[in-house]
Amino acid sequence: MKQDTPYQSLKETLEVTVDKITDNQSSIVSDQVAVEEPLEIKIAYGPANNRQQKSIAVTMRTPGLDLELAVGFLFTEAIIGQSADVITMKYDAFKAANESKENSLLVELKATLKFDPERLNRNFYTTSSCGVCGKSSIDMVFQHSCYTLIPGKPKADQSTIYQLLETLNSQQTVFQLTGGIHAAALFSSTGVLQFLCEDVGRHNALDKLIGKALLQDDLPLSECILLVSGRASFELVQKAVMAGIPMMVAVGAPSSLAVQFAKESGLTLIGFLKKNKFNIYSNSERITTR
Amino acid sequence: MKQDTPYQSLKETLEVTVDKITDNQSSIVSDQVAVEEPLEIKIAYGPANNRQQKSIAVTMRTPGLDLELAVGFLFTEAIIGQSADVITMKYDAFKAANESKENSLLVELKATLKFDPERLNRNFYTTSSCGVCGKSSIDMVFQHSCYTLIPGKPKADQSTIYQLLETLNSQQTVFQLTGGIHAAALFSSTGVLQFLCEDVGRHNALDKLIGKALLQDDLPLSECILLVSGRASFELVQKAVMAGIPMMVAVGAPSSLAVQFAKESGLTLIGFLKKNKFNIYSNSERITTR
Repeated sequence: MKQDTPYQSLKETLEVTVDKITDNQSSIVSDQVAVEEPLEIKIAYGPANNRQQKSIAVTMRTPGLDLELAVGFLFTEAIIGQSADVITMKYDAFKAANESKENSLLVELKATLKFDPERLNRNFYTTSSCGVCGKSSIDMVFQHSCYTLIPGKPKADQSTIYQLLETLNSQQTVFQLTGGIHAAALFSSTGVLQFLCEDVGRHNALDKLIGKALLQDDLPLSECILLVSGRASFELVQKAVMAGIPMMVAVGAPSSLAVQFAKESGLTLIGFLKKNKFNIYSNSERITTR
Repeated sequence: MKQDTPYQSLKETLEVTVDKITDNQSSIVSDQVAVEEPLEIKIAYGPANNRQQKSIAVTMRTPGLDLELAVGFLFTEAIIGQSADVITMKYDAFKAANESKENSLLVELKATLKFDPERLNRNFYTTSSCGVCGKSSIDMVFQHSCYTLIPGKPKADQSTIYQLLETLNSQQTVFQLTGGIHAAALFSSTGVLQFLCEDVGRHNALDKLIGKALLQDDLPLSECILLVSGRASFELVQKAVMAGIPMMVAVGAPSSLAVQFAKESGLTLIGFLKKNKFNIYSNSERITTR
């Protein structure tokens, strides 16, 4: 198999400025987050006289080993059976000038390889995202969201943030049984638990929570703090902004795109929550000290 | 909004039998895993004289709050803007007799709600799965996989399993920088690291690893142990089986469907790996004691 593009070495981490809170101390430091960027995987297939192209997946990934990611995906989806089924792979120029060439990869399949696009539609399942490139995704969500976050509102004391985890741990029942489930919990800005949703999928846990609020006509959740049990991905921040949630606290690390999007949408993003410390990645003016 | 189906209380956890290994001791105990099952979300839309149906997502979820999950998903994808946009929701009978009714939900949208199915196709991204119901998914993968796992082969000593985590931690570079990335690492059956892939998405990390092996014509990986940094979902086990990997070790918990599929495909599934303990969920005959 020929690789038209030299083996790329794209950035896997990004430096961000963080407001590190420990006990009552705050310090501005530089920190690294894992890069999260969309990769569109396209295939070209069929005989030379009837060559077709199809976009088959857009995945939020950390750049690096993109060619491996593409063929690994095609193989585990049973679209290819061996490396010889791939003629060549190359990054594909995008239409929009401001979009990265490295975010779209075209895989040329052998002309004789049998590929049925109909089967694909049945066998794939979708999770939410919005578009292909980080830049256009962010634009698109700004258009979609019905709610605007109000700068500096509400305020929450850092002692309130410290308490969230303890409250979550005392309530997360399926987690206690299995040790293997994600939670999304909604709190008032003074730290009172409103409700908690659990799911093996972290996006599902948040969708359940937002759906519950919607059915109760409680949107926008503009006075609330959202706590998520895992890491903060772009998608979770996106969902929070859609529901008008101004503050999101993650037990784990945020991704680069989550930080970027939180900044642009005015959401306060907190990561690495522990008993007496956390990091603020954006809009720290909502966090106060008694 | 009318809910045709009474508020369901489906099972969130499942009891499984586990071979618990601590130091050199093994004990068979009963344990709980989080239930993972597919939910298909379908919508009906358009005016009464031209009503259309469309399947818009299949998500692997923990049962419970399914209606909330569906409307939360529709809202965060900007398909609906308020609860009044939904007329009714009901579980939808499946074609196959052996499939659960609770795995398909039909959401009837208001006739006047504007919905453009084309926009949806552009805005969603896909991750891998195979079908709608757990049962049919598993059947489908059995058909697809080119490789059969050989019972009891290879063997790995429990001391080898204990070492994997230390080796991973000494190598996982992006994780050390960011604290927020997933890893998939391939080891020989004696615990020698072959290679390691990292990504913000756990499925991507494994796709990269399998893609790398494929490009080197190293498939099937029938003598290898796979270590994944997070939890063991159905999809990760599925990918491992596709690549002919006989042993998968997760740092976190497995889901119900991961355990079920590992058993049916003959893969040895280990979870909750720590320095001196782990749980074997299936095919424990591959693990030996010196």
